[in-house]
Amino acid sequence: MAERQIRICGIAGIPEIVPGDNLSERIVAALRKRSGAPPRLEPGSIFVIAQKVVSKAEGRLLRLDSVIPSPEAELWAERFHKDPRMVQAVLGETRRVVRMDRGVLIVETRHGFVCANGGVDASNAPAGTVVLLPEDPDASADRLRRELETALDCAVAVIISDTFGRPWRQGLTNVALGVSGLSPLIDYRGKVDSYGRSLHATVLAVADELAAAAELVMGKTLGIPVALIEGFGYEPASGSGKDLIRPPDEDLFR
Amino acid sequence: MAERQIRICGIAGIPEIVPGDNLSERIVAALRKRSGAPPRLEPGSIFVIAQKVVSKAEGRLLRLDSVIPSPEAELWAERFHKDPRMVQAVLGETRRVVRMDRGVLIVETRHGFVCANGGVDASNAPAGTVVLLPEDPDASADRLRRELETALDCAVAVIISDTFGRPWRQGLTNVALGVSGLSPLIDYRGKVDSYGRSLHATVLAVADELAAAAELVMGKTLGIPVALIEGFGYEPASGSGKDLIRPPDEDLFR
Repeated sequence: MAERQIRICGIAGIPEIVPGDNLSERIVAALRKRSGAPPRLEPGSIFVIAQKVVSKAEGRLLRLDSVIPSPEAELWAERFHKDPRMVQAVLGETRRVVRMDRGVLIVETRHGFVCANGGVDASNAPAGTVVLLPEDPDASADRLRRELETALDCAVAVIISDTFGRPWRQGLTNVALGVSGLSPLIDYRGKVDSYGRSLHATVLAVADELAAAAELVMGKTLGIPVALIEGFGYEPASGSGKDLIRPPDEDLFR
Repeated sequence: MAERQIRICGIAGIPEIVPGDNLSERIVAALRKRSGAPPRLEPGSIFVIAQKVVSKAEGRLLRLDSVIPSPEAELWAERFHKDPRMVQAVLGETRRVVRMDRGVLIVETRHGFVCANGGVDASNAPAGTVVLLPEDPDASADRLRRELETALDCAVAVIISDTFGRPWRQGLTNVALGVSGLSPLIDYRGKVDSYGRSLHATVLAVADELAAAAELVMGKTLGIPVALIEGFGYEPASGSGKDLIRPPDEDLFR
């Protein structure tokens, strides 16, 4: 059996991203600086890009002083010593509140993601602002992929990642919000195990695993918002982060 | 900022593991075969080892014909067209049933892991048997780490991984059950972001991210139960997979 080797590298040297920046140009410039030449990537290389820089480039910043809290937000904020404008910012991104308990606000975003605070985040944001999730992470991933492929003359995939918590387990892990160029799920159903027995319920969320792997080189304080993954064999496919959202009628923890 | 590069490699050539096998010897032999010489690893290399082979080596196999289903197991099995002995095998590993609905049985195992079927699995198991989780995955990880360090003359860490589902998101991802040699969580609380603002609720489950990364080279049908991760910088620590279990009183989805 052939051994597969995957290499994951953080891309340093990407400057602070501000609204209107061309993110793919910044990434390519950082790659160029690194290699001292036009970078040559292995076809099928995967860029994992932190949601935070995608949102910033797309101008998905909200000034807190522009937010008028609803009475519900005021009440909740007072009870748990939160900023009511921040609570309102979360509710503004919310399709459905999943849990609002013990100071934790877990919601389903307009996209369908279930996460704490609807992905609204004040860390690594300019003073007085919060960063919202991209409007359409798949569209962002598609656009970034097209731009990177043109600039690098090489087929790549793009995953836009964010750091989510999960029930039952401590700590956050990176997951994929937007995907372009690969299928986020690998379906082993119907394949056979090493005893020749068919595998039943095995669908792997590889895009989430790729996002998690990338987080290991990105870190929260390293200032490295993009990772490059090489050596992961996959069939190119259009892909969508929406495939990673469990349909409501199959979810026992709504 | 220095770039970090992580390399993840599946270790091919490990034979089918049976009860009583010395798993660390099998791993070292496969490494030796690969390099044609006594393998020299980078200190701090991390072995991610699939729970399935750890359990098999430890004899954690259950013959289904030895299982006597309880009336509860019979009832549930009939309702959802399951094997009542399999349902009983799951209940035998269970401390608490979390959800028993629509044919899905999500339980808290004796260890405290919340997962489908209590980690009891028939895939890649000898005919007529199921594989149970290791009795004490941390103890297994500790033992394997000591044995690998002695054989390889090099400090390493060991993660024992399994493939779990999760609410809200489609597909399974690898997580860490047992950990030895590194802290499974990295706590960024109190650190500052690039704007000098302190990060509040950011604890990263790096052992789960390492396990997820390893799954990308292991696959379900590749027959590669062990991955080697090099280049992940970390402070050696004793570590425990128990740190990844969210305390019940902090969990909103019990």
